[in-house]
Amino acid sequence: MVETRIHFHEALGTLKGLLIEMGNKVEEVLDLAVKGYLSRDSKLCTEVFTFEKDINIAERRIDELALELLASQQPLAGDLRLITACMKINSDLERVGDAAVNIAQRGLADAAMPPVELRVDIPRIVAAASGMIRRALNAFIERDADLAYAVLRMDDIVDRMDDDAWKDLVRRMHEEPAVIEQALDALIVVRNLERVADHATNIAEDVIFWVQGTDVRHRIGGFVVNE
Amino acid sequence: MVETRIHFHEALGTLKGLLIEMGNKVEEVLDLAVKGYLSRDSKLCTEVFTFEKDINIAERRIDELALELLASQQPLAGDLRLITACMKINSDLERVGDAAVNIAQRGLADAAMPPVELRVDIPRIVAAASGMIRRALNAFIERDADLAYAVLRMDDIVDRMDDDAWKDLVRRMHEEPAVIEQALDALIVVRNLERVADHATNIAEDVIFWVQGTDVRHRIGGFVVNE
Repeated sequence: MVETRIHFHEALGTLKGLLIEMGNKVEEVLDLAVKGYLSRDSKLCTEVFTFEKDINIAERRIDELALELLASQQPLAGDLRLITACMKINSDLERVGDAAVNIAQRGLADAAMPPVELRVDIPRIVAAASGMIRRALNAFIERDADLAYAVLRMDDIVDRMDDDAWKDLVRRMHEEPAVIEQALDALIVVRNLERVADHATNIAEDVIFWVQGTDVRHRIGGFVVNE
Repeated sequence: MVETRIHFHEALGTLKGLLIEMGNKVEEVLDLAVKGYLSRDSKLCTEVFTFEKDINIAERRIDELALELLASQQPLAGDLRLITACMKINSDLERVGDAAVNIAQRGLADAAMPPVELRVDIPRIVAAASGMIRRALNAFIERDADLAYAVLRMDDIVDRMDDDAWKDLVRRMHEEPAVIEQALDALIVVRNLERVADHATNIAEDVIFWVQGTDVRHRIGGFVVNE
């Protein structure tokens, strides 16, 4: 029994390690997609599609290991919460990869059109959204519920950036209909970054649930998130 | 032991029942949101926000029960796959609820603007996306992998509708910049419906995994889905 539990905890460590690796990959692919979009570089954008396939494979591997651990062991409450949190975080990370693909697709479309100077500060929105993903992953690595709560508080900031960008880009479309496509692409990019921030929020909630055994999703009063 | 397993199977039945109920609610809220948007009815749109809070509560309840079942029992392979499939389907259904909220928000924005006749056939796209959700849920209820595979094949149709709508709406924005906002709202509604179809695809994949023990996500060759 003791030996089984040692193996179990080794396997749990492997699971956590794979998830952290997955998180790093997802940060990288998001960075690549935004770089590709901003620099109108079709080659970078195309690399995102290949990279994202690796992420999908990593997602499956993590899910399989989690399921194996659930099946072969009777995990105690905290370990059980860790395994199911890993499965959920895994799924959110994969969807951040999907957001990167969407951004890269806009990058490809944009690279084929004349360049346009837009007022929207996309690097600033990227920094905020990526910062949330990084902090959510650090909260997971450090088992730090306070840091996870800090991520929840950041979501409003990105929502506000998204709203401002929306208004600004619609105004621009009215002023200069010739740039409608480019403004629309920027709008989709910003929306996807806002979605990345939502996934960071989900990850933070899963960390809190794992660490504290408290479900903070859709809380009435205090943080109302994910709605 | 026999008694425990009977209780366990009763609880599994409850879990399935709650998930089916959740699916019905989600279909209803999506229908409400689209009706509110198409009829420019602020009251209906506002109802969506209240309704969606119920869905969030239902989501938590299902997750809690699933976790309880994982914790208190050592589910066998098939039951374990069922429980984890329920958790995943639950999360996808909740995100369909989020899509309904996004659509209702566009409805509220549109209700405050002059009505515009757009060429995009939104009821047709809704019918396709809702049909996928319905079939995915039926596949779950009937434990029918063939039906789930049929859902996977439908995803391309909605993707094509989304592409066509996109092109059509951008053309319209160029022709008549005065209707940019309304066209943009329609575009966001269609994008959200396309996302609903993606969630239906995810649900279908989870049903296949439960029934056949095969992970069909991101398959190389055959169906390449969720990418």
